[in-house]
Amino acid sequence: MISNLETTQKGMQIMDALEEGLAKRVCNRLSELDSDLPRLITDYAFGSVVARPGLDLKVREMITVASLITLGNATPQLELHMKAALNVGVTPEELLEIVIQMAVYAGVPACMNGLASYRKVMNDKGLTLPGLKQEAI
Amino acid sequence: MISNLETTQKGMQIMDALEEGLAKRVCNRLSELDSDLPRLITDYAFGSVVARPGLDLKVREMITVASLITLGNATPQLELHMKAALNVGVTPEELLEIVIQMAVYAGVPACMNGLASYRKVMNDKGLTLPGLKQEAI
Amino acid sequence: MISNLETTQKGMQIMDALEEGLAKRVCNRLSELDSDLPRLITDYAFGSVVARPGLDLKVREMITVASLITLGNATPQLELHMKAALNVGVTPEELLEIVIQMAVYAGVPACMNGLASYRKVMNDKGLTLPGLKQEAI
Amino acid sequence: MISNLETTQKGMQIMDALEEGLAKRVCNRLSELDSDLPRLITDYAFGSVVARPGLDLKVREMITVASLITLGNATPQLELHMKAALNVGVTPEELLEIVIQMAVYAGVPACMNGLASYRKVMNDKGLTLPGLKQEAI
Amino acid sequence: MISNLETTQKGMQIMDALEEGLAKRVCNRLSELDSDLPRLITDYAFGSVVARPGLDLKVREMITVASLITLGNATPQLELHMKAALNVGVTPEELLEIVIQMAVYAGVPACMNGLASYRKVMNDKGLTLPGLKQEAI
Amino acid sequence: MISNLETTQKGMQIMDALEEGLAKRVCNRLSELDSDLPRLITDYAFGSVVARPGLDLKVREMITVASLITLGNATPQLELHMKAALNVGVTPEELLEIVIQMAVYAGVPACMNGLASYRKVMNDKGLTLPGLKQEAI
Repeated sequence: MISNLETTQKGMQIMDALEEGLAKRVCNRLSELDSDLPRLITDYAFGSVVARPGLDLKVREMITVASLITLGNATPQLELHMKAALNVGVTPEELLEIVIQMAVYAGVPACMNGLASYRKVMNDKGLTLPGLKQEAI
Repeated sequence: MISNLETTQKGMQIMDALEEGLAKRVCNRLSELDSDLPRLITDYAFGSVVARPGLDLKVREMITVASLITLGNATPQLELHMKAALNVGVTPEELLEIVIQMAVYAGVPACMNGLASYRKVMNDKGLTLPGLKQEAI
Repeated sequence: MISNLETTQKGMQIMDALEEGLAKRVCNRLSELDSDLPRLITDYAFGSVVARPGLDLKVREMITVASLITLGNATPQLELHMKAALNVGVTPEELLEIVIQMAVYAGVPACMNGLASYRKVMNDKGLTLPGLKQEAI
Repeated sequence: MISNLETTQKGMQIMDALEEGLAKRVCNRLSELDSDLPRLITDYAFGSVVARPGLDLKVREMITVASLITLGNATPQLELHMKAALNVGVTPEELLEIVIQMAVYAGVPACMNGLASYRKVMNDKGLTLPGLKQEAI
Repeated sequence: MISNLETTQKGMQIMDALEEGLAKRVCNRLSELDSDLPRLITDYAFGSVVARPGLDLKVREMITVASLITLGNATPQLELHMKAALNVGVTPEELLEIVIQMAVYAGVPACMNGLASYRKVMNDKGLTLPGLKQEAI
Repeated sequence: MISNLETTQKGMQIMDALEEGLAKRVCNRLSELDSDLPRLITDYAFGSVVARPGLDLKVREMITVASLITLGNATPQLELHMKAALNVGVTPEELLEIVIQMAVYAGVPACMNGLASYRKVMNDKGLTLPGLKQEAI
């Protein structure tokens, strides 16, 4: 977790793997507030924690989506990480399963809010909803 | 909690008692995502839990509103259940009392957010706010 | 919500209706911290909010239990209000229904924690669990 | 915590110190709902709790902002209290520090949501973001 | 999500895969409360949601652990699902990574509480903590 | 926020200012889990965030206590930071005020739990409760 040029670059690479151009966009926004603030995201969140070798990026995005649905008050971040999950190989069907399982643990309202974000993300990416691929009930 | 046609119908009847046409609307929306998903709501949430005989529907909506104000992150569901509460016999005055009591347990911000939803629901249903019926302070 | 002798007495009467001797016990404990603090509970929470006329005490305890299960981090208060609910006329069967319905809104873990408190309260009061009254499955 | 004319006035004075005209605006809004409701805010929240002598108003607003960022579901109140904090002497740099420290305790999403509210508040008050005052990275 | 004998059995099989004897133990405990209650867990939580085909059981336990750490108020369930995760193939190192990543999303206190549960689970299962396998710092 | 020897040392100095020997104790515990984990606390939480110059340590502990009472599920950390607050110059009376004000924002149960931790901390440090210094009511 040494925060040096290497850590910063590793963090930014992960951010860009999640969404093209994300690292630069977030750093520009945050540096308007404070010159050290971008490193909170690049070096700490992504470079030192998400970059750890023990889990692949696909699983890391899956557990992040589960956490954000459970928190229930971070819709922009939930939608960013749902798109990121799709970008690193989580399938639309797997993503939907995560949202549905949260009904058990975080409650049905958290699940319903998660489904609304899921629809928006699928629509923004031009993807067909899983249930519409097959015959409806 | 046997999930069969009877359970599904009982769940859908409760949903329609809460809001006319709710069952069909929710099922249509959810089946766009997954063919089994509507049953999470009709058979589990409403048919097996809310349909249990131990409490009448009016009390069930009252405790649901209390829970949703406390969660604080489920505004659409809160407004749906506030309308539903009014539809099954909770009076506007009783509904207001529930929101006010939540100030003690969930905090004043949760109460204030609940009051904002209450105003919106009363307005959507064309009802006069309780305080306006009498002389204002 | 005028906080005068009458409000204080009304608040303390409600507290004692919920649990015999509660008002004095809470006031003694809180006055060890600050001489004005007991009034936060007697005058505000109970005398001005819970004492409002719009809902009867039984319903007020029911929504309080729903809120405390949803918060999930207030076990002592949850158990106090579960006992209080039983003391003001909520039946053991109704209390159990509230805990069960919270599975839908606050999640199954919140419900499971609520069931643990319910067992403890029933045991402390020497009451038989509802399922043991009839033949077990 | 005696709720009399003096308590009401003290509460309203604090509210107006936080934001000019706040007391009247809030009381008018709340009295549309119930004639006793304004006193929940003027007498309890501000007149009896925030008015206590043990902490100055600047520190009280700082801990309120920390609590509201942690709750994460009370954006309108967070923005009101961020403006109020600036109005009673918290500097923009101090306010930003509070938001940043919440990343550690309430999580990065809560901090990011707090930063979005911070930007909006600074913009509404016509203030320059701290990072733009100096050379960007 | 048809709740019939097949669903019940599927749910109970999953529960026993997570922890030997879990299904019977939970059903016995819950039937003391209400004869329908065991099915809330066997048929709904496990038989209809966790049993869905879209994610394997290992991933389902990973997102469950993430959700429970984020909720922060369900320690017994967190420890049960941490053990379950290890039982279905999540390695101790992967489980630790999930806890650590939650520092970013749910905050450092949630992570610290998660680490305490992790230690307890590792100890209960007689496993060596990952950091002790290698030379300490 | 450069994480190098200087940052690590700064973080550990802050930790030891909050509680003598805290840095070593936490690092030893965490290194049993993972060799990089201590830096999450020393370099990130304390060295890079809490060490920022914009707020003094006394205010930082005050907002931390407010956040932890609001979270409501981090009792060990709340008690650690209550003690730390007293160690860096927050008076027992100021600390009590913070807990009391949280009644408004996080709810009365969060305040009551905070008061229980406050009592424990005061007792552990051999300090007299503020209300006992004067005549009780």
